[in-house]
Amino acid sequence: MENIFTDDYFMRKALQEAEFAFDKGEIPVGAVIVIDNKVIARSHNLTEMLNDVTAHAEMQSITAAANFLGGKYLKQCTLYVTLEPCQMCAGALYWSQITKIVFGATDDQRGYRAMGITLHPKTAVVSGVLATEAAELMQRFFQQRRK
Amino acid sequence: MENIFTDDYFMRKALQEAEFAFDKGEIPVGAVIVIDNKVIARSHNLTEMLNDVTAHAEMQSITAAANFLGGKYLKQCTLYVTLEPCQMCAGALYWSQITKIVFGATDDQRGYRAMGITLHPKTAVVSGVLATEAAELMQRFFQQRRK
Repeated sequence: MENIFTDDYFMRKALQEAEFAFDKGEIPVGAVIVIDNKVIARSHNLTEMLNDVTAHAEMQSITAAANFLGGKYLKQCTLYVTLEPCQMCAGALYWSQITKIVFGATDDQRGYRAMGITLHPKTAVVSGVLATEAAELMQRFFQQRRK
Repeated sequence: MENIFTDDYFMRKALQEAEFAFDKGEIPVGAVIVIDNKVIARSHNLTEMLNDVTAHAEMQSITAAANFLGGKYLKQCTLYVTLEPCQMCAGALYWSQITKIVFGATDDQRGYRAMGITLHPKTAVVSGVLATEAAELMQRFFQQRRK
């Protein structure tokens, strides 16, 4: 039997979250955290609604996943996020010791790689999963804002 | 008349917060955010109690100050924190465009400078304020934990 629980499968759920952000006028970034093929946290950017620069999708999912697990370390967990994490989120992911990060579109300006951030040595990274869809949603958002 | 609202004055309040953290068995870091000589946020590290790696003193104060101000940017604000911010907190401070950061003890392992983080170009930094007191509290904490 084919494994349906691919990176694409979970990234589609993160993209769905990004669309919820889009609909609220938030920069459309979405995230889910998965353990044993189960989604234990899902969130989208809420910086405008909450008036809070810390309310990135990743930060909310890290808090929610730790709450679900009853422990602050996200070992065995994978984060799916539609956009490359910024230095704040990369810093939080570092502390969480998360096992794997899968992101979609790259962020050449504020992404953690452009900002010179090092992730935790235990953390594996996969990039470019459904990157076109994630980038297209971002472009649509900024085009609409310029109107 | 002498100005009582010095960096030392507000750092003492951050140190008081760090002591609250110490009393709870948390790594003793405290922070306050000040605007026009008024404390609008105060917090201490709660990562153990909340099971949340994002619950650093700075992160909580950023959220609280933005909530108080009704806007996500912390222009005209100064953060006082007893320990040099980590990369997560430095990333959040970057997004907040905070005017000034004053910290006490340096963190040569996980501090934002050791991790190669750049703060926002608009942010001024003062380091070493009541550094001895802050470092002594940290040492006392880790000595006690080793027992």
